[in-house]
Formats: sequence, C-alpha cells, structure tokens
Amino acid sequence: MIITSKDNSKIKHIRKLLNKKDSMNEGLFVIEGENLVEEAIKNNLLVELYVLDGTVVKYDFPYTYVTSEVMRSISDMKSTPRLIGISKYINKNTLGKKIVLLDDIQDPGNAGTIIRNSVAFDVDTVVFSKNSVSPYNEKVLRSTGGMIYNINIIIADLDNVIDTIKNENIKLYGTSLKSSISLLNVEKTNEFAIIFGNEGNGVNNKYLELCDLNIRIDMNNKCESLNVGVSSGIVLYHMYKR
Amino acid sequence: MIITSKDNSKIKHIRKLLNKKDSMNEGLFVIEGENLVEEAIKNNLLVELYVLDGTVVKYDFPYTYVTSEVMRSISDMKSTPRLIGISKYINKNTLGKKIVLLDDIQDPGNAGTIIRNSVAFDVDTVVFSKNSVSPYNEKVLRSTGGMIYNINIIIADLDNVIDTIKNENIKLYGTSLKSSISLLNVEKTNEFAIIFGNEGNGVNNKYLELCDLNIRIDMNNKCESLNVGVSSGIVLYHMYKR
Repeated sequence: MIITSKDNSKIKHIRKLLNKKDSMNEGLFVIEGENLVEEAIKNNLLVELYVLDGTVVKYDFPYTYVTSEVMRSISDMKSTPRLIGISKYINKNTLGKKIVLLDDIQDPGNAGTIIRNSVAFDVDTVVFSKNSVSPYNEKVLRSTGGMIYNINIIIADLDNVIDTIKNENIKLYGTSLKSSISLLNVEKTNEFAIIFGNEGNGVNNKYLELCDLNIRIDMNNKCESLNVGVSSGIVLYHMYKR
Repeated sequence: MIITSKDNSKIKHIRKLLNKKDSMNEGLFVIEGENLVEEAIKNNLLVELYVLDGTVVKYDFPYTYVTSEVMRSISDMKSTPRLIGISKYINKNTLGKKIVLLDDIQDPGNAGTIIRNSVAFDVDTVVFSKNSVSPYNEKVLRSTGGMIYNINIIIADLDNVIDTIKNENIKLYGTSLKSSISLLNVEKTNEFAIIFGNEGNGVNNKYLELCDLNIRIDMNNKCESLNVGVSSGIVLYHMYKR
C-alpha cells in the first residue's frame, strides 16, 4: 500500500500532531529519520511508521509507503526524509534525583541542546514548564542529537514540581547573572534540581526566592550573558565531574 | 532624502555584501539593529547608515531614510529592522595570546555562540579557517549577542596561523572525543590556542597531531558528543576561572 495524497486522513493526522496542543492532547509526537525511529522501536514507543516510496526497510515493524510529495508535506526539512514515525511520549511523570527545570525556554535549539547536555552529564529528568517550547517539537528533537529517548521528560507546572522537590529535600539551585555565589564555590551533590530561565528574562524571581542557592557563572563584564544552552553545559559539567 | 526602490544602487550594494565573497573582497559587512550600529560608531567602523522611514535617529552620523519595502529587501529578519549599517571589518590580523581557532565551523549559530563565549572568558582572538562560515554572516552576528566588536576576529589559513603559534611558543590544544587527557587535568595557562572542529568531523587530524595536548570533556557514554558551542563554553570557562 502506498499513500499518494496529502489529504489522506493519516497524513492529516501527522500534520495535526506537529501542533504543540494536539501533540500534548494525544500524547504522541512526530519523529524523523533512522536514528529516532530505531530508538522509538527499541523503547517500544513507535505507533506508526511511514516510509518514502522505494526505501528498503530493515525494521520488523509494520509500515506504509508514501510518495515524496506526501513526505514533504509532513516535514520542514530541506531534504525529503525517508522515514517518519509517530511515537508515544516518553513522559514517566516521576521525578528523578538529578533534575533540570526549564522556566519558559522558547528557542527550540536551546531546548534541544539542554536535553543533550543533560544526557551527557547524568541528569535523569528534564522538566519543561507549560509555557516552554514543546520538547517534542521537530527542531528540538533535531538539536538533541537523538537523545530524547535517553532521559525522562516531563511537561508540568513548575510550582507543583518545586513543591515536590522541596518536600523530598532535594537541593534547589537557581541560575542568575546577579547571584552572589560563583559556580566555583558550589559543592557537587548527588541530588540536585537546577532551574534555567527564559532567554530574555532569566529565571522568574518567585522561583529564585525559593532556591537554596542561586548560582552565577563568572565572566568578563564586556559580555552581558551567555546563551542558556552554554550556561547549562557549564553548570551541569561542574555538577558531573569528579 | 529617502530611497524608495529596491533597485537603487546603494541598496543593491548592501545585498551584494550579504554574500560572503563580496563581503571579504571589500572588507565590509552589513549590520542590523541599534546595538551593533552603536558599537560600530563607537569603534569608528561605521561606513553607511540606513534608517527606516519615520524612525527618530539619535546618532551623530549621516544617514539615509529607506521605505519598509526596501528595508525588508536587505534583511532576512521576520520583523523589519529600523537600522541597517555597513561596517568595516574589525580584523587586526595580529594574534593575541589567548586564541580560539575554528576549523571549518559551518553553523552560524555555533560560530556566533563561540564568539560570545570567547568574549565572556577573556579570549582575545578568534581565527576562522577559510572554509568556516563567515564571522560577518547576519546569523552569526545575531548569535554573538552584539559581541563582534569586542574581540579580534581573523579569517586565515589555519596552517599559517598554527606555524606562528608554534614559533611564539604558545601552547596549542586540540579538542577531540578520543583524546586521552580529560579537561579536569588541564592546567590553566595565561597563553593558549585552542582548536574547535567542524560539527560533523571534529578537528582535522593533521592539526590534532601538531597539538601539545588534546583535550576531552568527560561525559556519560549514552551521549556521543556535545554541541561545539557548548564544548567551547566548557573548555574556555575552565581556562578562565581562577
């Protein structure tokens, strides 16, 4: 079987899932490329698989061929992808002990980079505030370097999550340019939750006030701030290295 | 005076300068927005200034009004910029003592982030290999956060630059996933040159072989690699902090 029309109901459903709200409502997201499809199969999360007509498929998973025109209608990549899948969310809704909290991160590249850094430096849970970009956005997925299935991802209200963190006595760290504590003086701990803030506004003051410690990265004052993907890398590497 | 036609010769000249080769040949680049225009004036590098019709200009610099249609024809921003300038290159062609070398970095966002990190952590010179993205590319300029005028930028053949570095006895560091020396064990020095590599291929082997030391960033093996903007931030912060 091959789907030749962009108006096919299954193809329309994929396009619908590219929308954040619909994706969240259904708990499903769209993935592109071998890397992510393989990971989705390995994790038993793949639901549907669509393959560019003529491509040889090496997976033991039912699939449907589509024409290149149809494929292009469900991707914003410059080159036509050969594989597109629908995956279930990874969301386990249980907090780990090494947590990153994202307070309204907007840029998909930054969000993806933070997920990648989190996997690299042993964070077990990344919590996206409800006003952050969706972790299942195509551009985020691309920037993670295929890491999305290697970490627990939660979309939640940060107020509730911070309550839980406080109740579990996990140390809560804020990051802010105006903080008095330099990262150099922060002790490594086995349990932590670190909040990174919106690109323009930083971490919300109401959260900074709840933190056990607010951390600053020392830098030359010619530079006003670092990119949040970079800051997260520096802070998480500090907490990781022995 | 107001320019109303996209085909005006001055406007055509700006569009020409958006091309890497033409920009390099003329030693001029296009800048957008208040931040960069102010910096260009401060550094005596602004050559021409174009202002969106109706905008109040607070600079003591001759300018020409253009219509919003003309403005949009010389920018790829979603919103129409109010200021566009032509600036001379900052290029001093003299190497400093804290140097970053970019071996064929392709992504403008990464290049801009590395410039921003370099300013933050006291690097004085960033050398772009000839096959790297242009440091004067609009997207690079945007990712630097306006930092381009705060650092010495050189576009050069890396072989020649590495010769000079060797002759001046400045320590040369490579970065590689396969390196045996962890960043943790690298001593901070007041003079250094660090090479960061292409997004797909890393640093060219011929350069790695010339290095005094090749550095690795320890990470969980679930993650294959970090984004090069993030790696540069972690390494440069390590060399900076006291």
